[in-house]
Amino acid sequence: MSAIDDLTTELSKLPGIGKKTALRLTYHLLKQPPERSLRLAKALEVLAEQVHPCPRCHNLTEQALCAICADPRRDASVICAVEEASDIGAIERSGEFRGVYHVLGGRLSPLDGVSASDLAIDDLVRRVGAGGVREVILATNPSIEGEATALYVQQALVPQQVLVTRIARGLPVGGDLEYADGVTIAQALVARRDMT
Amino acid sequence: MSAIDDLTTELSKLPGIGKKTALRLTYHLLKQPPERSLRLAKALEVLAEQVHPCPRCHNLTEQALCAICADPRRDASVICAVEEASDIGAIERSGEFRGVYHVLGGRLSPLDGVSASDLAIDDLVRRVGAGGVREVILATNPSIEGEATALYVQQALVPQQVLVTRIARGLPVGGDLEYADGVTIAQALVARRDMT
Repeated sequence: MSAIDDLTTELSKLPGIGKKTALRLTYHLLKQPPERSLRLAKALEVLAEQVHPCPRCHNLTEQALCAICADPRRDASVICAVEEASDIGAIERSGEFRGVYHVLGGRLSPLDGVSASDLAIDDLVRRVGAGGVREVILATNPSIEGEATALYVQQALVPQQVLVTRIARGLPVGGDLEYADGVTIAQALVARRDMT
Repeated sequence: MSAIDDLTTELSKLPGIGKKTALRLTYHLLKQPPERSLRLAKALEVLAEQVHPCPRCHNLTEQALCAICADPRRDASVICAVEEASDIGAIERSGEFRGVYHVLGGRLSPLDGVSASDLAIDDLVRRVGAGGVREVILATNPSIEGEATALYVQQALVPQQVLVTRIARGLPVGGDLEYADGVTIAQALVARRDMT
């Protein structure tokens, strides 16, 4: 039954979904009205075909600019640099930040072959160099790689004479920003410290 | 960002996938080539549009008859009745059974409002009544509802004077056939007992 096998195979390629879970999900969908599967299929198609990085901050969007860069009420003079686009949602949920973002696209990790040129660091320096930015908040993860990345970005920004801050270690060390709760993130933002 | 929200919402409707897992899966797909999401979308579409129950045994198929009913090498004189189409895969993996199937579509469960008329029991009786069947193996789950269903089906088949057997309780009581290993299922099939 190739339709069932095909879907099971595709689902089992997702992280954390094994062969049996994939099979269970497939049979679950078979018991639902077909519209359920079609809505999921449609959402995947739109995701694959329309979502792209924002040209300004590398956040993911379906528009010319992402919703945050396009919002005139956001304070464009404060840039919060994060590792991944998924971190933006976590910070937004904290309700503590009204500036804009810059997605670095990862963290420095020599063991995984990720060097500074793989991240959007030069791009951030250019963005600050264009003027109008008074503070860059480094909100990379509180892990060893995240700290190293923050330090590297801070050094890269020294010539720009901009205030560079680091979110406080209210986040549990070794943790992952994406999964932190809003209150912890809010505290970490409030207690951010000057890195210069 | 509605494409991301939409997919996250659709994924989080699946059993065992919460909001955070759904978000993680969405961002995982965003990091993959778009073809990955499109293949998954396509598999869902085919599933929704082409898979339907086999008119003979109610197994799921994309063809006019399911692969097992259509296979001339299968022994059509032995029918194995199961609760769900997903149970067929478990029995097939045991390699012990060369007959055909009949999917009842659930189990008797008055508390959930599932009565005999909701299951394909009459249909099984008609199938046996049409002749050429010498044995019906009842392979409903070894749970209370599964045993009750087996007993009900056995009673319904009494007028047909066909041999009715029940798979042995080699399966752990209260367990789920779908997740049993092949060896256990094979033993349960070999040790099946006459119910008449």
